[in-house]
Amino acid sequence: MKIRIHVSLKPGVLDPQGRAVHHALEGLGFEGVKDVRIGRIIELDVASDTSDERIDEMCRTLLANTVIENYRIEKGDE
Amino acid sequence: MKIRIHVSLKPGVLDPQGRAVHHALEGLGFEGVKDVRIGRIIELDVASDTSDERIDEMCRTLLANTVIENYRIEKGDE
Repeated sequence: MKIRIHVSLKPGVLDPQGRAVHHALEGLGFEGVKDVRIGRIIELDVASDTSDERIDEMCRTLLANTVIENYRIEKGDE
Repeated sequence: MKIRIHVSLKPGVLDPQGRAVHHALEGLGFEGVKDVRIGRIIELDVASDTSDERIDEMCRTLLANTVIENYRIEKGDE
């Protein structure tokens, strides 16, 4: 079973990586960029009997830092 | 205009970060995880007159390493 977890910084949390990319885009002459924020996608292939609670537990324990990050779990078999 | 760019490693390219996460999940007692791959999402807020070609150019120039990574551009205003 394929699970996709989207992890993004909470609104208001400073994103230095996004800022660096924003700056680099401007330096390369790309105009009109107002904001850049960077998150990550974790694609898991797990046993089909894995419960939603267990996946949520993985997120809270290891995959996301819930102090500064939000996560969203997306199930699918594409 | 909000643009979301999904960057993921091409199939077959070794993902050491995913491997480390996989190993850590197993160490924490999460069983049944078969594979972990990690990608990133770049959320751009760009001027509404930015052309698709320009966004594609940003990806090829800076945001993705097209030798080892695929990217997918998703437009939306959520």
